[in-house]
Amino acid sequence: MQWTKVLGLGLGAAALLGLGIILGHFAIPKKANSLAPQDLDLEILETVMGQLDAHRIRENLRELSREPHLASSPRDEDLVQLLLQRWKDPESGLDSAEASTYEVLLSFPSQEQPNVVDIVGPTGGIIHSCHRTEENVTGEQGGPDVVQPYAAYAPSGTPQGLLVYANRGAEEDFKELQTQGIKLEGTIALTRYGGVGRGAKAVNAAKHGVAGVLVYTDPADINDGLSSPDETFPNSWYLPPSGVERGSYYEYFGDPLTPYLPAVPSSFRVDLANVSGFPPIPTQPIGFQDARDLLCQVNVSVYNRLELRNSSNVLGIIRGAVEPDRYVLYGNHRDSWVHGAVDPSSGTAVLLELSRVLGTLLKKGTWRPRRSIVFASWGAEEFGLIGSTEFTEEFFNKLQERTVAYINVDISVFANATLRVQGTPPVQSVVFSATKEIRSPGPGDLSIYDNWIRYFNRSSPVYGLVPSLGSLGAGSDYAPFVHFLGISSMDIAYTYDRSKTSARIYPTYHTAFDTFDYVDKFLDPGFSSHQAVARTAGSVILRLSDSFFLPLKVSDYSETLRSFLQAAQQDLGALLEQHSISLGPLVTAVEKFEAEAAALGQRISTLQKGSPDPLQVRMLNDQLMLLERTFLNPRAFPEERYYSHVLWAPRTGSVVTFPGLSNACSRARDTASGSEAWAEVQRQLSIVVTALEGAAATLRPVADL
Amino acid sequence: MQWTKVLGLGLGAAALLGLGIILGHFAIPKKANSLAPQDLDLEILETVMGQLDAHRIRENLRELSREPHLASSPRDEDLVQLLLQRWKDPESGLDSAEASTYEVLLSFPSQEQPNVVDIVGPTGGIIHSCHRTEENVTGEQGGPDVVQPYAAYAPSGTPQGLLVYANRGAEEDFKELQTQGIKLEGTIALTRYGGVGRGAKAVNAAKHGVAGVLVYTDPADINDGLSSPDETFPNSWYLPPSGVERGSYYEYFGDPLTPYLPAVPSSFRVDLANVSGFPPIPTQPIGFQDARDLLCQVNVSVYNRLELRNSSNVLGIIRGAVEPDRYVLYGNHRDSWVHGAVDPSSGTAVLLELSRVLGTLLKKGTWRPRRSIVFASWGAEEFGLIGSTEFTEEFFNKLQERTVAYINVDISVFANATLRVQGTPPVQSVVFSATKEIRSPGPGDLSIYDNWIRYFNRSSPVYGLVPSLGSLGAGSDYAPFVHFLGISSMDIAYTYDRSKTSARIYPTYHTAFDTFDYVDKFLDPGFSSHQAVARTAGSVILRLSDSFFLPLKVSDYSETLRSFLQAAQQDLGALLEQHSISLGPLVTAVEKFEAEAAALGQRISTLQKGSPDPLQVRMLNDQLMLLERTFLNPRAFPEERYYSHVLWAPRTGSVVTFPGLSNACSRARDTASGSEAWAEVQRQLSIVVTALEGAAATLRPVADL
Repeated sequence: MQWTKVLGLGLGAAALLGLGIILGHFAIPKKANSLAPQDLDLEILETVMGQLDAHRIRENLRELSREPHLASSPRDEDLVQLLLQRWKDPESGLDSAEASTYEVLLSFPSQEQPNVVDIVGPTGGIIHSCHRTEENVTGEQGGPDVVQPYAAYAPSGTPQGLLVYANRGAEEDFKELQTQGIKLEGTIALTRYGGVGRGAKAVNAAKHGVAGVLVYTDPADINDGLSSPDETFPNSWYLPPSGVERGSYYEYFGDPLTPYLPAVPSSFRVDLANVSGFPPIPTQPIGFQDARDLLCQVNVSVYNRLELRNSSNVLGIIRGAVEPDRYVLYGNHRDSWVHGAVDPSSGTAVLLELSRVLGTLLKKGTWRPRRSIVFASWGAEEFGLIGSTEFTEEFFNKLQERTVAYINVDISVFANATLRVQGTPPVQSVVFSATKEIRSPGPGDLSIYDNWIRYFNRSSPVYGLVPSLGSLGAGSDYAPFVHFLGISSMDIAYTYDRSKTSARIYPTYHTAFDTFDYVDKFLDPGFSSHQAVARTAGSVILRLSDSFFLPLKVSDYSETLRSFLQAAQQDLGALLEQHSISLGPLVTAVEKFEAEAAALGQRISTLQKGSPDPLQVRMLNDQLMLLERTFLNPRAFPEERYYSHVLWAPRTGSVVTFPGLSNACSRARDTASGSEAWAEVQRQLSIVVTALEGAAATLRPVADL
Repeated sequence: MQWTKVLGLGLGAAALLGLGIILGHFAIPKKANSLAPQDLDLEILETVMGQLDAHRIRENLRELSREPHLASSPRDEDLVQLLLQRWKDPESGLDSAEASTYEVLLSFPSQEQPNVVDIVGPTGGIIHSCHRTEENVTGEQGGPDVVQPYAAYAPSGTPQGLLVYANRGAEEDFKELQTQGIKLEGTIALTRYGGVGRGAKAVNAAKHGVAGVLVYTDPADINDGLSSPDETFPNSWYLPPSGVERGSYYEYFGDPLTPYLPAVPSSFRVDLANVSGFPPIPTQPIGFQDARDLLCQVNVSVYNRLELRNSSNVLGIIRGAVEPDRYVLYGNHRDSWVHGAVDPSSGTAVLLELSRVLGTLLKKGTWRPRRSIVFASWGAEEFGLIGSTEFTEEFFNKLQERTVAYINVDISVFANATLRVQGTPPVQSVVFSATKEIRSPGPGDLSIYDNWIRYFNRSSPVYGLVPSLGSLGAGSDYAPFVHFLGISSMDIAYTYDRSKTSARIYPTYHTAFDTFDYVDKFLDPGFSSHQAVARTAGSVILRLSDSFFLPLKVSDYSETLRSFLQAAQQDLGALLEQHSISLGPLVTAVEKFEAEAAALGQRISTLQKGSPDPLQVRMLNDQLMLLERTFLNPRAFPEERYYSHVLWAPRTGSVVTFPGLSNACSRARDTASGSEAWAEVQRQLSIVVTALEGAAATLRPVADL
């Protein structure tokens, strides 16, 4: 059987040459269509599931995490070449692949002048110096390529002052200290990771006159309380006392010098003096070993430097046979803080295995997807999702017009208990369909779906008990896709059993202990969770790229809208009424959306029973694909860079409802009726009503006025 | 033959019923497709051209202009009903039609307290009062429905002061007066129409402390210098001495209280105190009869009132048989200042004739277009394109995703010498194709195209001598479509022989003399120019709705870009170089666009020779349709409401080049290198480079990275 397929491809290729160069990639020859089924081919799906190989993922990970590969470092560039080589492989590569490079502003500690944290005695002498590097426990924590722990984008400076413990560095924490009569002016604040964003700790501290900030990882937050060397890595998955979490302290995402513009060399760059979003005061992360020893007067010396560096994305494509202009986009970042075996190489190891399996089917002539599949390896994510953001800025319109969905697999395995998916509502059904058909790793004979529902579940008014999807914040490269472009997105990983650990995140996160052995011994021995993620992502990608009808269920947005509405009614309704603001139009808009989404679902069901024309299905799929775009309003939140999605923009208020409404209410709450803040509440309400009415209008039969 | 067609339709209709209500409008039954040719049907085109009837257009105009129909007046509402009746007619109507109503802020003179302009003697006595109404020359200038001449949105107030003649009220005019040592503080400025926008005269005046503004129509500008009653209407087409041009003095467009939101009752409305764009000081238009008599001390009393009023759009649709989700949108406004025979009823008379002819073919079962055709009658255009703007705000995403092109025919006949078209470059070719096939009215046996080229032409590097299209400002309802939505748009009319008149516009514009007899006797006796416009618009609409390949030639943008680039190089190059700003990236981007547009053109030609798959053509048509969208950047000009098109936003600088670059250079010119103004030049340059690179990327083969 293999022979006839190879022969078929040979003829197809000859036909392609015959059509000549002019046709280029556009005119996919008819012959190629014969490879592409009209619809998802379950046999192909099964083949792919079977070929995704845990051992190969393990080997990928070993190679990817062999050396530290900080963004723009020589090893990061080596991995660009590795990806290009894999994706151009004649036997298991894609149709084409290329690297594209941006010139972006990164931040590094000085090699000559390391950052220093010292305890200073009453006479000015140094009593204790914090560790400048992590302890070389496994032989991988030493050497020049292990970047010193630092807070990227924190300004340099050498503040000295009394140490004040400020909990998590939240606004409330500093207010509490003030209430206790503690003078904050000129102090060094010791804060622990968690609670608020990294950069926010320094922003909050600076408001109170604090001169410098230290951020440590508390054993209570990361190690389930354990802290001694014999209880930590390499004896367990817990963080050694010397471990320090690195990270970006930049408030926004994307290259700091080129907001809304691609960071190509010719693009305009904001003057450094006008850049916003960097921490206002020197900041340095430390390990809990040092945190424990800190007292009294502390001297912090930060010598971070900003540098313009070249950082590359690598993009590979499998051209769609029937609808090449519809992109199923699947990506992960490549850069790590040190070896980054978990973050991000566990995702890249899966990405490479998936591209190998699909590439092999492609090169053998067994399969070509209906729609195009784009694989992406993003650069400089750790510094603020820079590679992916610049990509969305450079190809804004093209991506917005054509992208079916974005699938992100960053850390593929945090732990090996259960699947965890974050996503916009239309992706729920395709993830459910995929996971019901894949066996879960671990004991028992459960599907990934059935295992998942044991850990994360909710009671849906429509479906009953189902696994619960989380919502997408801005924790990885999906952020510019969902918030800036309005593309249906998801992030897939395997994660913890929360009854077994309360670790804020896997303990060696962003430290030099995040190594291959750590994964191999503690996180996922046997790599079966990696394989489960590969299968889940693979099945989702195949379903999105091959199904005749796009498996995006827009009516699943109705549940979200209804719950947002109910929260607004219950928790804000009385307040709004006091200020003569009616939720009536919002109720109407949600009802319209529900009705139109249900009616569209009916039309799809009816059509699926017949033998619909491909053009008819294309028109319907366009409605499904473009629904998410209708929730974008670039003028809704002018102060929130990149956030245009009126349902998923950051929410500061405690009520889980439409973010613009929630935030505006928080601000207006203590002002009088008729204030500007209350006008803003009304404006935000109109923005979301208009978006929902517009969304309902796009779901109506297309020739209805 | 008629019988078989009726029978065929009957069966089609039965099949439609059989499919049931669930399918709704979406699933156009296959039977309907048999009516729709795969491509433009030249026989149908000829039939339509033949049936467009000058006499019927004349009768439409008579009815439409029978009574004054100011926006939101009872007669305006009557015309809504007339349109609905025509578009729902069982024999010549459309598939469906409906009115949609917005609640918008309009401005009217007070009925009880008319606006007054008096000359005051040294002792305070009134020496002369300006006319409050126009002279009732034909019996149509009297009565309660003829609105008093006024400046819509000018604030009320009763300033009194010395009269100063301020030419056109441009910034230079007031500066010139200042140079001459004339004190402007507290004066009344007498200005003439033209040169700058209506509202700008008051804005400029107020900056110099002027207390009130009068605006008159100068016989030199409108009447080729003629001014006596025996030389003016009803003895000629010229404006009588008492004629006063009304108009909106609002700076922006759309409902002033709901920028970026549809003016539905529930939408948030800006507090009146925070509305921007109204004239800052009382303003009143007058006729030249009164302007001549004005001297010394003048007393202006303006009693304009703002009112929330309901104003309707009427929308009708012919559903596309094959691609119902692609809209060819054709519209005109309905409201007039008084009878509005020319403005806008000459356009509406054409619109109704076109909908009749197409509706009749539809109802007979002879024809159904490939794509949907949407007819629109906009409300409250005279107050600032309000109906069309609110429509684009309400259905922003749906329209942006699906609209092929917008065709505007407002005033269809200014004069009967030649066609005049304004439009974005991609529409040039379809207008040329249409006009080459239609006979021009008037003597000789020329096509409209051949007649047109005699009046407006340019030498194209690609095509040689061709008629020249104008660019689209914001003079009619196309503005929100092109500037806010980025839809390829055009405005079609018949207009003057400039060797015969230098009138700024047809002389009775916005006066009570713009009546049916005026058109019938002077502008277009026999209505052959109206018919020519109907045929041109009709042919363009049929070509856009029926052609298998969309007749939008995106490569015609290359000429525009090249000329903008050359202007930038010639007129700004040296200045930019002084400030170390390179046009290199812009050159590269223009070259990329040219190359990609040309290559796409080649691929289209090649495909057209074969028998391409409808899905392939759809993908290609999407590239053509969506190109215009790639030039939008909602963050490019934050201070310019609605203007997001980086090629057609308002240009203040004198260099005919990219508007953002031109404007930023004007502002930066006199500042030092390194100033914020020069940073803005660089930012604007990057914005246009990014847009052009993005545009080129959308034209590339769709599966190229």
